[in-house]
Amino acid sequence: MAPVDPALLQDLRVRVGDALVTDPAVLAAHAHDSSRAPSEGMPAGLVRATGTSHVSAALAWAHEHGVPVSVRGAGSGLSGGAVAYEGGLVVALDAMRRIRDIDVANRTAVVEPGVVTADLDAAAREHGLFFPPDPASARWSTVGGNIATNAGGLRCVAHGVTADAVMALEVVLADGRVMRTGSLTRKDVVGLDLTSLFVGSEGTLGVITEATVRLKPVPEGPQPTFRASFPTIEQAADAVAAIVAGPEQPEVLELLDALSVEIIQSFQPTGLPAEGAALLVGQTAGPGAIERAESILELCRALGATDGHVSEGDDLLEARRLANPALTAKGLRVSCDVGVPISQLAAVFRGIDDIGAAHGRRVAVVAHAGDGNLHPTVEAGESADEIAAAERVIDDITRLALSLGGTISGEHGIGSVKRHELPWQLDEAALDVQRAIKAALDPRGILTPGRAI
Amino acid sequence: MAPVDPALLQDLRVRVGDALVTDPAVLAAHAHDSSRAPSEGMPAGLVRATGTSHVSAALAWAHEHGVPVSVRGAGSGLSGGAVAYEGGLVVALDAMRRIRDIDVANRTAVVEPGVVTADLDAAAREHGLFFPPDPASARWSTVGGNIATNAGGLRCVAHGVTADAVMALEVVLADGRVMRTGSLTRKDVVGLDLTSLFVGSEGTLGVITEATVRLKPVPEGPQPTFRASFPTIEQAADAVAAIVAGPEQPEVLELLDALSVEIIQSFQPTGLPAEGAALLVGQTAGPGAIERAESILELCRALGATDGHVSEGDDLLEARRLANPALTAKGLRVSCDVGVPISQLAAVFRGIDDIGAAHGRRVAVVAHAGDGNLHPTVEAGESADEIAAAERVIDDITRLALSLGGTISGEHGIGSVKRHELPWQLDEAALDVQRAIKAALDPRGILTPGRAI
Repeated sequence: MAPVDPALLQDLRVRVGDALVTDPAVLAAHAHDSSRAPSEGMPAGLVRATGTSHVSAALAWAHEHGVPVSVRGAGSGLSGGAVAYEGGLVVALDAMRRIRDIDVANRTAVVEPGVVTADLDAAAREHGLFFPPDPASARWSTVGGNIATNAGGLRCVAHGVTADAVMALEVVLADGRVMRTGSLTRKDVVGLDLTSLFVGSEGTLGVITEATVRLKPVPEGPQPTFRASFPTIEQAADAVAAIVAGPEQPEVLELLDALSVEIIQSFQPTGLPAEGAALLVGQTAGPGAIERAESILELCRALGATDGHVSEGDDLLEARRLANPALTAKGLRVSCDVGVPISQLAAVFRGIDDIGAAHGRRVAVVAHAGDGNLHPTVEAGESADEIAAAERVIDDITRLALSLGGTISGEHGIGSVKRHELPWQLDEAALDVQRAIKAALDPRGILTPGRAI
Repeated sequence: MAPVDPALLQDLRVRVGDALVTDPAVLAAHAHDSSRAPSEGMPAGLVRATGTSHVSAALAWAHEHGVPVSVRGAGSGLSGGAVAYEGGLVVALDAMRRIRDIDVANRTAVVEPGVVTADLDAAAREHGLFFPPDPASARWSTVGGNIATNAGGLRCVAHGVTADAVMALEVVLADGRVMRTGSLTRKDVVGLDLTSLFVGSEGTLGVITEATVRLKPVPEGPQPTFRASFPTIEQAADAVAAIVAGPEQPEVLELLDALSVEIIQSFQPTGLPAEGAALLVGQTAGPGAIERAESILELCRALGATDGHVSEGDDLLEARRLANPALTAKGLRVSCDVGVPISQLAAVFRGIDDIGAAHGRRVAVVAHAGDGNLHPTVEAGESADEIAAAERVIDDITRLALSLGGTISGEHGIGSVKRHELPWQLDEAALDVQRAIKAALDPRGILTPGRAI
């Protein structure tokens, strides 16, 4: 892509004023995201939108001139979806961070896309409500990015994914037109479900400039944490299946293999028990939460757990949230995000072990086990060769998950990092349909080109 | 549309064999659906598919020759989506009625589209599971039709709409190609969410030939029914809002106005109490269900209920399910399907009263109150003039719902009956996007043309 003509940038400045940033240091800071995707070069400009009209003007400009656009909230994505394009435009939404409304009676909130997810949750809690989506990045990722990637997280096992919390959107289309989707009602079947189409579309179809989301009442009483250690990963996986099928639905149900536990402990001593091959950590909430946690533990013991405990604090989940930084610090740098049906959890853990051994690399696995969503992370040096070698391990793990009826991405999305895997999961007709929708909505192909679909 | 050339029909017969039906009596019986939409003439043929290959061959033929296609399961739709086209092709899916798999461990079922919804539910219950979607038509409507319209029902307040139960689809595209969407995992963010796009698309984008759906465990213990009578509709509406916001989430929460109660009682004495302006009927399930129903009743009494009762049987809900036939039998023939945010329930009930009075017509209202989804039904004679006059009442009610932040359709879909209302709710950009997607996926416009979008 040739550099953008300075006269064109001047035209954009006329349209968006000071919202256009061309300071090279700022551009460089916004050229990449939190993934391992390599930089694609320096963007020509960045529009830090403070309102929908900025986004609309920026996209209209890019549409007219065929300039590739990347979109970002906090840049916390793990799949390369927000990496800037050489000579392209970055639309940054982090300054659109107003919570416009919290409607307690209808349990909805209207937010701008740059609101940090945990800030929305905190604002809702002032009214006895909470925002269910809870990605591990909630303290820095934004609602808009969470919606654009249909983010998951720890509470999905109880509350579903981000898509389940989105009722209505304001979206700027590729040509700058502003569209509203969805409604404020709990049921709405009017035309095609464009809300769901834009959720998880990773910036390829439009830019979300406002969202109406569902809130839920904060459960009364304590939210106890439970943990159980298992001698074998199979026993732990069987316990997950039994818990999910049982009467006591947990809020959170996470599984860490022994290597993950060991690495988190050596990164920061958190009191995670070191025994056994796998550690199950979870939470219950609502009426009888403590009794229900005890009842889940009882089930775990019946299925072979050698150690179990219920506590009132959140420490164990905090330790779980340390997994990513701890693994990175210890040289396990290349992770993925596969999913399998619950019944295949034991099989996928066993298979990952075998794949790691065959490649001669350590693989640590933490899993949103209640959803069958795993994050295996492979050890690798920092060189490109090392990363490439680790990615071959990830490819094998991904093929394994697919062979078990699984998915190449449970919650991180495709971006650029997983794009080569798309045809492994989607058939030719589905790929065609995705491309046809993309072409229909973004005929000049300016929005996040070459990614996600 | 000119009649289909006999040579063309012969070509179709070569492709689908005996699945092609041209018996005029059969065609006439399949020319309309359960809505008030007028007949559009006689179709040229009907393909009673027994497998995906029949559907694929039929659509490929229609695509080649530009023949309009209507799709039907049981023909139970209330919006005219399955009415046949003059000289068109009917694709009938009622013979594709195999339940291919019930996977107890993963709590999923794989079904053909013609499976009757209640049959799937019954099959699941043999394994201690149930199929959450529960439209009032469940005993005769089909899973495929429920998915194509994103059907609602009585249990949505607890379990969401049909979309929430759909994990993966096999779809035949307009040109006959077969596509798979979604996955068997609880989380999946791979490319655009085509599953959600096809759910509720009312036959405009493709024909669903297989669905993988979520099942849930049958709650243990009794599922008590509760009822409460209120002196005013405002008190009843306030009680609904309080129940929905409260800790005891009901499985079912229905509201009937006095006229509906009176008409059901005169149609078939069911023991519904006749006092008050409104009757709330609901159900609880799971641990402590009876205590929770009592607790809901207590809340109702605190908010003005003059009569309340908890019982173990299902009689009250059976009476509620009689509403449609009872209203029709008593000359209330023209119904609609609006939704409002919960906080506007009282306002919409009051407004409907005023609109009925202004038009000099009785309007009975039954509502899936916990979802803010109302079915006002207007009295009308059988003549076209009478129906048209009642439709003007419906138009006013629909505009009222929209003015309260509501929707023109909560669960019945648009079909042909509500198509003139689409621009009342959707903005020009959203209408354009829907048309663009339709054109991209069905460039010859053969699938359910002129409806839904």
